[in-house]
Amino acid sequence: MILVVGSVAYDNLETPAGKRDNVLGGAAVHFSTAASFFSQVAMVGVVGPDFEDQHITFLRSRGIDTSGIVVNPQGKTFRWSGHYLNDINHAETLATELGVFASFEPKLSSDHAQTSHLFLANIHPRIQASVLDQMPVVKFVAMDTMNYWITTAREDLQKVIKRVDAIFVNDMEAKMLTHQKNVMNAAAEIMNWGPKVVIIKRGEHGALLFTKDFVFSAPGMPLGLIVDPTGAGDSFAGGFMGYLARSGNGSEEHLRRAAVFGSVMASFQVQDFGLDRMRTLTTADIEQRLKQFKTLSDFSGHAVFG
Amino acid sequence: MILVVGSVAYDNLETPAGKRDNVLGGAAVHFSTAASFFSQVAMVGVVGPDFEDQHITFLRSRGIDTSGIVVNPQGKTFRWSGHYLNDINHAETLATELGVFASFEPKLSSDHAQTSHLFLANIHPRIQASVLDQMPVVKFVAMDTMNYWITTAREDLQKVIKRVDAIFVNDMEAKMLTHQKNVMNAAAEIMNWGPKVVIIKRGEHGALLFTKDFVFSAPGMPLGLIVDPTGAGDSFAGGFMGYLARSGNGSEEHLRRAAVFGSVMASFQVQDFGLDRMRTLTTADIEQRLKQFKTLSDFSGHAVFG
Repeated sequence: MILVVGSVAYDNLETPAGKRDNVLGGAAVHFSTAASFFSQVAMVGVVGPDFEDQHITFLRSRGIDTSGIVVNPQGKTFRWSGHYLNDINHAETLATELGVFASFEPKLSSDHAQTSHLFLANIHPRIQASVLDQMPVVKFVAMDTMNYWITTAREDLQKVIKRVDAIFVNDMEAKMLTHQKNVMNAAAEIMNWGPKVVIIKRGEHGALLFTKDFVFSAPGMPLGLIVDPTGAGDSFAGGFMGYLARSGNGSEEHLRRAAVFGSVMASFQVQDFGLDRMRTLTTADIEQRLKQFKTLSDFSGHAVFG
Repeated sequence: MILVVGSVAYDNLETPAGKRDNVLGGAAVHFSTAASFFSQVAMVGVVGPDFEDQHITFLRSRGIDTSGIVVNPQGKTFRWSGHYLNDINHAETLATELGVFASFEPKLSSDHAQTSHLFLANIHPRIQASVLDQMPVVKFVAMDTMNYWITTAREDLQKVIKRVDAIFVNDMEAKMLTHQKNVMNAAAEIMNWGPKVVIIKRGEHGALLFTKDFVFSAPGMPLGLIVDPTGAGDSFAGGFMGYLARSGNGSEEHLRRAAVFGSVMASFQVQDFGLDRMRTLTTADIEQRLKQFKTLSDFSGHAVFG
């Protein structure tokens, strides 16, 4: 079982493929949906009274435990408005309305506090720490963050990083965090702080997974059309953590496969707006894309010189 | 045997790792040196009387046929001055002094005209066409180009592209060339013009190889220190073409391996200034790095769902 703590949101999106308002989104939603294909997932988050029942119904249809989604009557659901009109790989934020998310103070039920796997989605590092404090027996913790917390809450952030097993960041965030100019050195420094696994997300180029023992490069799947990149990073984390929780094994082989399933889930995520691709996705689709990733990156390593 | 036609140059380089003047460089030199580990190579180019014998001695020590390097007494060797101080992945040109390269009109010897494999390095597409005209029986032709020719000589460039088997371009060049916004669609369009193989170079992220039948993603090797990226693209092409000429086989398996050897040679190239890493490189080093690339990207593709 995986517990995820993070945002539940409405997104207003515009991409070269079109415009959509009031789309179900948020890090915890994207993560949970992707992870739900592999493992049991429980969500902890907050919404306003404007959050529609149909979204809870969808999450439950994916087998997700939504009992940790609190309705706060004193505000609205977090809303993010952004577009990708200049560069499909780069979100430009038009507005962020935190609503009830501004006063979010997650309190875990005793059941949720016993979960073996935890994903701390992008949120203030003090809130990430307060969740960790409530889970003394958790086995594997992964976290996400963003440049905003690196700039405005570096000390709190570093304290949390020391307590997790794995961290997801992009190239730029890894370099900002460590003041390193090179992603490999940045990953090595983050590992020195505590995490055993550092995953560098590289958008269309896939991801690099670092441990003290090995480096793994998970390719990105070249796609003829990217409809909406929103949630790709959280879907990656969901595929990764979902597979790890399913396998119950953190060996090198399984970490490699977890990163590929991260790339697989991100590759589906970007093929439609919001969660629309996920609504019809099947485990057979996932198996098929795993094979496509294998074909994409496979080569013979036998010797060439006599 | 591979023939390469292109620049022989002196480079003045500055990177975060240091500053070097009068370094042996040029596309034909970088290509030949990388390819020489796999195959016989002959170079066609032009230099001025300022070109030192030691460089010819080095190229010959790599088994390269330098008989096609003409000395033009009426000018100086092509010189490129550039730096990578703001971004190690992005060259900023300070000066380009074409010298004798400005009036370069390659005339092939009858021996050279019979070569089976040809690499047309980055140069005016009309010169690339004139070389092709002199090689009626060539079996496999690959070309490079750059944004400058896409902008200033698009018609000539498109005529050459139609005549080659393979083309090396980066993401941005592929998109500029085809007016496509997506690299996969750009590659498909270029293949419609004629080339059977399109290789999209992605710097530290490796390369994508497209044919009508398959897509292959060659990873880039994460390196703790990039000393000098100059020549990485030509070293990639040299490893690719060198391996293809050595194997004498353009099957899918060999094209995949060729792309990996391209990445292997580029990964060595950037580890020292100019050609310095190549001066001590051995085939054992190359075999070892091939294994590292295999380890970097290998994962189990077996089914996960019951």
